[in-house]
Amino acid sequence: MTTEATSGWRDAGLSPDQRVRDLMARMTPREKIAQLHGVWVGIDSGGEMAPHQHDFAVEPPDLDELSRHGIGQLTRVFGTRPIAPEVGAHSLARTQRKIIAGNRFGIPAMVHEECLTGLAAWQATAYPSPLCWGATFEPDLVRRMGFRIGAAMRRLGVHQGLAPVLDVARDLRWGRIEETIGEDPLLVGTIGAAYVSGLESAGVVATLKHFAGYSASRAGRNLAPVSIGPRELADVILPPFEMALRAGARSVMNSYTDNDGVPVAADASMLTDLLREEYGFTGTVVADYFSVAFLHKLHSVAADREDAAGQALAAGIDVELPTVDCYGDPLLAGLESGRVDMALVDRALERVLRQKCELGLLDPGYAPDPSPDLVLDDDESRALAREVAERSIVLLHNDGVLPLTGERRVAVVGPRANDPGAMMGCYSFPLHVGVHHPDVPMGIEVPTVLDFLRADHDVTFALGCPVLGGTDEEIAEAVEAARRAEVCVAVLGDQAGLFGGGTSGEGCDAADLTLPGRQEELLEALLATGTPVVLVLLSGRPYELSRQIDRLAAVVCGFYPGEEGAAALAGVLSGRINPSGRLPVSFPGAGASQPSTYLTAQLGARSEVSTVDPTPLFAFGHGLSYAPVSWVTAGAEAREWPTDGVCRVVAVLRNDTEIATTEVVQIYLHDPVAEVARPVQQLIGAVKTDLAPGQTRVVTAILHADLTSYTGRSGHRQVDPGNVELRIGRSSTDIHATVRATLTGPRRRVGFDRVLTPEFEIDC
Amino acid sequence: MTTEATSGWRDAGLSPDQRVRDLMARMTPREKIAQLHGVWVGIDSGGEMAPHQHDFAVEPPDLDELSRHGIGQLTRVFGTRPIAPEVGAHSLARTQRKIIAGNRFGIPAMVHEECLTGLAAWQATAYPSPLCWGATFEPDLVRRMGFRIGAAMRRLGVHQGLAPVLDVARDLRWGRIEETIGEDPLLVGTIGAAYVSGLESAGVVATLKHFAGYSASRAGRNLAPVSIGPRELADVILPPFEMALRAGARSVMNSYTDNDGVPVAADASMLTDLLREEYGFTGTVVADYFSVAFLHKLHSVAADREDAAGQALAAGIDVELPTVDCYGDPLLAGLESGRVDMALVDRALERVLRQKCELGLLDPGYAPDPSPDLVLDDDESRALAREVAERSIVLLHNDGVLPLTGERRVAVVGPRANDPGAMMGCYSFPLHVGVHHPDVPMGIEVPTVLDFLRADHDVTFALGCPVLGGTDEEIAEAVEAARRAEVCVAVLGDQAGLFGGGTSGEGCDAADLTLPGRQEELLEALLATGTPVVLVLLSGRPYELSRQIDRLAAVVCGFYPGEEGAAALAGVLSGRINPSGRLPVSFPGAGASQPSTYLTAQLGARSEVSTVDPTPLFAFGHGLSYAPVSWVTAGAEAREWPTDGVCRVVAVLRNDTEIATTEVVQIYLHDPVAEVARPVQQLIGAVKTDLAPGQTRVVTAILHADLTSYTGRSGHRQVDPGNVELRIGRSSTDIHATVRATLTGPRRRVGFDRVLTPEFEIDC
Repeated sequence: MTTEATSGWRDAGLSPDQRVRDLMARMTPREKIAQLHGVWVGIDSGGEMAPHQHDFAVEPPDLDELSRHGIGQLTRVFGTRPIAPEVGAHSLARTQRKIIAGNRFGIPAMVHEECLTGLAAWQATAYPSPLCWGATFEPDLVRRMGFRIGAAMRRLGVHQGLAPVLDVARDLRWGRIEETIGEDPLLVGTIGAAYVSGLESAGVVATLKHFAGYSASRAGRNLAPVSIGPRELADVILPPFEMALRAGARSVMNSYTDNDGVPVAADASMLTDLLREEYGFTGTVVADYFSVAFLHKLHSVAADREDAAGQALAAGIDVELPTVDCYGDPLLAGLESGRVDMALVDRALERVLRQKCELGLLDPGYAPDPSPDLVLDDDESRALAREVAERSIVLLHNDGVLPLTGERRVAVVGPRANDPGAMMGCYSFPLHVGVHHPDVPMGIEVPTVLDFLRADHDVTFALGCPVLGGTDEEIAEAVEAARRAEVCVAVLGDQAGLFGGGTSGEGCDAADLTLPGRQEELLEALLATGTPVVLVLLSGRPYELSRQIDRLAAVVCGFYPGEEGAAALAGVLSGRINPSGRLPVSFPGAGASQPSTYLTAQLGARSEVSTVDPTPLFAFGHGLSYAPVSWVTAGAEAREWPTDGVCRVVAVLRNDTEIATTEVVQIYLHDPVAEVARPVQQLIGAVKTDLAPGQTRVVTAILHADLTSYTGRSGHRQVDPGNVELRIGRSSTDIHATVRATLTGPRRRVGFDRVLTPEFEIDC
Repeated sequence: MTTEATSGWRDAGLSPDQRVRDLMARMTPREKIAQLHGVWVGIDSGGEMAPHQHDFAVEPPDLDELSRHGIGQLTRVFGTRPIAPEVGAHSLARTQRKIIAGNRFGIPAMVHEECLTGLAAWQATAYPSPLCWGATFEPDLVRRMGFRIGAAMRRLGVHQGLAPVLDVARDLRWGRIEETIGEDPLLVGTIGAAYVSGLESAGVVATLKHFAGYSASRAGRNLAPVSIGPRELADVILPPFEMALRAGARSVMNSYTDNDGVPVAADASMLTDLLREEYGFTGTVVADYFSVAFLHKLHSVAADREDAAGQALAAGIDVELPTVDCYGDPLLAGLESGRVDMALVDRALERVLRQKCELGLLDPGYAPDPSPDLVLDDDESRALAREVAERSIVLLHNDGVLPLTGERRVAVVGPRANDPGAMMGCYSFPLHVGVHHPDVPMGIEVPTVLDFLRADHDVTFALGCPVLGGTDEEIAEAVEAARRAEVCVAVLGDQAGLFGGGTSGEGCDAADLTLPGRQEELLEALLATGTPVVLVLLSGRPYELSRQIDRLAAVVCGFYPGEEGAAALAGVLSGRINPSGRLPVSFPGAGASQPSTYLTAQLGARSEVSTVDPTPLFAFGHGLSYAPVSWVTAGAEAREWPTDGVCRVVAVLRNDTEIATTEVVQIYLHDPVAEVARPVQQLIGAVKTDLAPGQTRVVTAILHADLTSYTGRSGHRQVDPGNVELRIGRSSTDIHATVRATLTGPRRRVGFDRVLTPEFEIDC
């Protein structure tokens, strides 16, 4: 029997399209736009949810008033204040019930939350940051992490996660480098897609950020204009989005920036022509926070908020986050006057409602109750956080001082040695608890490097200097500690923060790549003691180490390794863990300048045409091991490579050491002649493999010719016939074999459905 | 009576087109290509001309062998070695006679020479460098200089001058910033067009460099790839070329760079579609040195030199300079095999021959004899070099210490105080005499700042440090000199050079904007003495002065003021000259990063979104005077501004002081709402005017609406109806009046024939 409560759009037996069409036909304009805007909320210590009034917002949201028409989207429920997960989850459920009760149709809100390094909530696991994911070169591991993050969110009642960041690092001065996976599109895309696949398989909508161009902002300044042409966009910036969309991402967030003058939030060529028509994307596009209003206030392409709303809707922004500033009353006024076409609202609404339908939010009997299991930072999560950290740490340099076996007299020095915040990036919520709620415990246990070294060694600790500032006395004290020690472990790097609150993080850009504050001075003073110095870098970006590298005993790069990062670092320092991370970003060479990544055409890579030498100190893909793998042989099975076929590349590796070890086989493409100036080399395949002592492994890469494609003069992506070189090795500068292959057959035009990743077979 | 010697293409009574067609029909393929390639020559001390074998060249040119088919182009005749003008001119004439006698048609070579800061030849006047031209804000003065340079070249037998550089400064780290006129397209275009007009009116072909994009190379590294989109190219990079083409330039040189992957030398959309079809250009396009071969060797878009030749010809490079590497045998092989179409050679040849015809080189009786007057650095030239220098010096900061009246105890300190090379940029030939021929006198008299200060004051000189390097003792000596003096004049800055030979100049890029070497340390030591320090900056780019500015008594910026620069600087320091220069480039603020110019959209200019603050220390257009002008009033005559009409803006200025003074009235456009993110403000008019003591002047700017145009979403340049602000003032940050005007009427699409410059009326 069909009743009102189960007929039409409530009828789960109809297709989502039918249900959505039925529902839309019943809605007033006000009810429609209510589904398209978001409200930033927070939960107070009493567990009550209330709107959060952000400095950038214009209209103070009134939940009760808004609720009468529905509330389409709620965001930052758990991430605004330090609230226990069970308190937050039940508060959210109560609010959802109010929202359901408040609107004529009983539609609940989509609930969004940040989740870049784990759910951005109190007491949730702080996983390693994205540079660490890139450094693992292990998509499966990142997929497991994404799933675990998603599962936690789902238990709380969160539907959409505002991650991952797929921006390809272009300028290391940019504060958000720490949120990127690295400087190579294939690596960013492979790892990013794995995160997406994990999150989505937990039933949570992944949101691809920031589509597209943000990382190329001028001088690496946050939000600054992006000078870019269509080929660089297509060949460097977009591939990770293509890969992540094919991995099932159901939402996309726009880049704040203007690209060659056109703000993405108002760019239909990006959000509709490319994303919808070329890529066939059917999910939602959500606005980066305040970016619809920015069309008026900051980009000055809209006359007022109504105009901004109209332009954003027309371009393809479906949901305004986290305000009602444009998609609220201004949009309603535009609809009423006819200045904005209702068809544009309907287009966005249809996408939003279809997603709600698919998530079950429109089903009769939908109940917003959280899971009974609301322990977020459980043992399994911590173990996974540890595993990602262990597999991500990059040993950059080692004169033999590492591992530090036996009990030693160790001076532990530096601002990052004993600060739990050193382990976390700007999107790690526990970091902000410390900053904004100093009286509240961090919610999770985050040991420091000092904690672990104390357990293993006879340790003297001295701060040396804070991340910024400091006194001569502090430096002198650290020097004295180093002088008396057998070895000095200097833990230096960044304080992550937001908008001025740190040396790295959103809005925390750098003018150059000198270590922040007095840290280089501290390092020089420590080196002058003659005691071997092991530098542990905990930072959001590579820093300039070329002035000290010849005197440093070892350098270990951890980026932000998360809550279990200190354990992992201690494992590497002691030799319990054999390091296997590889650099996802290059470290700058002496006197180098930014922007500069390994992905550059010949004239950007040569040193003789300019007094500024772009040669990196540590190249993309670099990373040492305590047990180097022997490369027995490497080569290609065939020199002929059909433009629509595959080329098989084989590397035979052997572990001649007595400990387990790991290699990342990397394959770079060099194209000697192309229609355009291509990067000198570019990663087209990489795979990580473990080798037991004495083990031999045969790694075969199956490379489709599509992987050689690039955007030619015509503006289309193409596979060219002709000669190419495949460079097979341990890093972009440590090549074991170069194979020349000839692509045969006709030139092929390829698109979104091309082969995006290589396949690998690993035999023992 | 018509004879063979005066018929057909020799017949001056026929049109150039008829003559060129007739000649071309008679030529073999080998003779045709001989007209299209160039030979770099030098004259030895015996006055004999011989090919110069450059490291970058592949084929050693053989003049005698080449001569059998003709030699189309000779270059660097005077600029390769220090040869007296009369020796060079007569050697050139002899060579031309040999070339004429050597080919069947008796066609002489086009003779090219560098002439950026005056003819790049021994004993020729070294004028101020282009940043100084920009600082004058006086096109008429630069036009006179261009004419004088051209007249000297013509007397020697040079036909084509390889100047001016019209690249708009985009990244101050770029070594060639010193060759630019500044960071604003209107200023660069106005001054550059004036130079062109002067050179061309002397009968010399001006060559516009570098079409287009070079200045936007990544990280300011010479030749590095350019990330740019079509709007930025159209609105920032191209306007100076449009202005200079309309001023009559007859040649264009390509940019070395690739723009978004496409090297300009192989880019028909730039060299043909835009330059020929849209702009209607009919002159020649000459290759920047070696850039055709670079298509193969460095850009890797051509398989070999023949392919490079074919691509360059097809794109629209008519003349290969300075080699036969591609347009010699490789091109011939391409023609013979049919891989290169003869029609492409004929297209280039027709342009080259028509230009030769128009220059009289094809006329019967053409004689390559030089003028009897071969004194190049005569009194009039020196006086003009002085005038340009005097009008260009920018007083950036003055606490009242300047002018230095009366005789004072002055410590003159710094590496640029007593080096004639400090006055000259990397394209000033006398500089290279000193570098490459240390035993040869410089050829012209180039006094230093020390020379003049010694004449005026009781001077103690101490070097302090070289431009790079130096010792603690040298700094201590300078500090001692400063301590004992009433005032310290520190002359700091760059050593111009080429490819590693300097701190500024082609290939001499900077990683940051810290003063080179130990100069900042020297400056700090001088400031610590407590003696007032006047900083005189002689440099090819702005440097970071924000750490010292509050303690500096005065800062005078000279850039490279040429052979009379020291006299001009001494005049400003003493008060004999009232400084009137204005900054054509911004000086960076504390902790700023590059690239950053004043010409940026709002999100590139705001300081609150990033920890890196782009606010300049001294803004574009800034410059002080010893006698500030009183602004009586400023405003617009009408608030309605037809989109095809003019707006008149009036400023009433009065000199209330007792000395003659000067103002540069600057008008900036702010567009509150546009289709794309436009620069917050952009210069649309500037005029310099002198005021006698007590004088009042009424300055009227007649601004056509075309000056508000920009490249919209459609990719076309347009004038929008709607509100704009006109900001009238002394600099981009010292605005006296803001006028709101409303553009009325329909949106207009405008093109190459739009109004490019404002008009001014100045009434007393």
